[in-house]
Amino acid sequence: MTKVKVFANILKANDTLAQKNKKLFRSNGVYTINLMSSPGSGKTTLLERTIAALKDDVKIAVLEGDLQTANDANRIKKFNIPVTQINTDGACHLDANMIDNALDFYDFSSLELFVIENVGNLVCPAGFDLGEDDRVVMVSTPEGDDKPIKYPVMFRKAAVLIINKIDMLSFTNFDVSKVKKDAIKIKPDIKIFEMSCKTGEGMDDWYKWLREQVKKKSNK
Amino acid sequence: MTKVKVFANILKANDTLAQKNKKLFRSNGVYTINLMSSPGSGKTTLLERTIAALKDDVKIAVLEGDLQTANDANRIKKFNIPVTQINTDGACHLDANMIDNALDFYDFSSLELFVIENVGNLVCPAGFDLGEDDRVVMVSTPEGDDKPIKYPVMFRKAAVLIINKIDMLSFTNFDVSKVKKDAIKIKPDIKIFEMSCKTGEGMDDWYKWLREQVKKKSNK
Repeated sequence: MTKVKVFANILKANDTLAQKNKKLFRSNGVYTINLMSSPGSGKTTLLERTIAALKDDVKIAVLEGDLQTANDANRIKKFNIPVTQINTDGACHLDANMIDNALDFYDFSSLELFVIENVGNLVCPAGFDLGEDDRVVMVSTPEGDDKPIKYPVMFRKAAVLIINKIDMLSFTNFDVSKVKKDAIKIKPDIKIFEMSCKTGEGMDDWYKWLREQVKKKSNK
Repeated sequence: MTKVKVFANILKANDTLAQKNKKLFRSNGVYTINLMSSPGSGKTTLLERTIAALKDDVKIAVLEGDLQTANDANRIKKFNIPVTQINTDGACHLDANMIDNALDFYDFSSLELFVIENVGNLVCPAGFDLGEDDRVVMVSTPEGDDKPIKYPVMFRKAAVLIINKIDMLSFTNFDVSKVKKDAIKIKPDIKIFEMSCKTGEGMDDWYKWLREQVKKKSNK
């Protein structure tokens, strides 16, 4: 079973580098999140809103992951915070080695919050630890309410579930209570936020929670 | 570079089985499509509408692919057509071997149209030929209009692009002409349909096109 052995070796190498990344984040008191979702759930819009709300009192940097284009990094640049874009050139997820290679760009001693926006994919990114403190998974109401039960691996390791696009709820048959129930069944202590990153509804609780995590990790 | 070599071997083995599958479909005059999109774009709803519209005069069967659950197959069963569910148990795409293993369930001599609904994933399924005649990729308006340029591999080999959820267009900033332009730049002869699988708007052209493809391939 060469295939299985090689994959195990890849994961082992990834974990070693993830530990290296984690050590760097921790030693600098930087709270790091790995943000994941399907394509188009609203990850970058969440970041735009969150940066605008927090950047005056939290030192934030962002790392963007995509197969192609620097579109997402360009959307973040307007906030004048450190941001880089990794293009995976076809690969379906970020791995710890890609993160490690990008970290020289940042001065972690001057940061408090580091957000890694993963490739839009509800499957593969779940398998790769990047060294983050917490994983945040986002689903949006137009995607339908069957995502936790159909993609359980992604939810099993997530600290936070964001249910986005609640402004579109009435145009869908998305059942918020079903999604929450299914997610909690998979990950009993998952923290859930309902919001619209378009209108801003429900985002204050998220900002508050994020500030608390940053404060907990900070050694500054 | 063991990793690369093993992956090349996997793809080679996949192509051999894909050719075997294709031979079976062709020898029976069955038109086969591989339907792909992000999670929640509306693949299964497209199938429900399409089966309802065509099943009285086109002999259809469906193969559903998901990480977990038989939800999608259960949605198709009500039409009393042959349907099976593959659970990939975490794997991010269907491959030709999974299809090959499932084909005994069907009597292809009595079929005209075979639809394989892939795992919801805009990245990985693009790398694996299943033996299909055509690939159909779907995007939906709430996902945003940057999908072709951010996930070009998926669009490069697609015969058809379906732009779904046009009933939600006014609640998004989705630019239909941009998506069409970007998709055509990647795949100049891509056939594009705009529709709402919820309201049925725009679906007649799709049904007409699909009937034509079935007729072309049919030896019955």
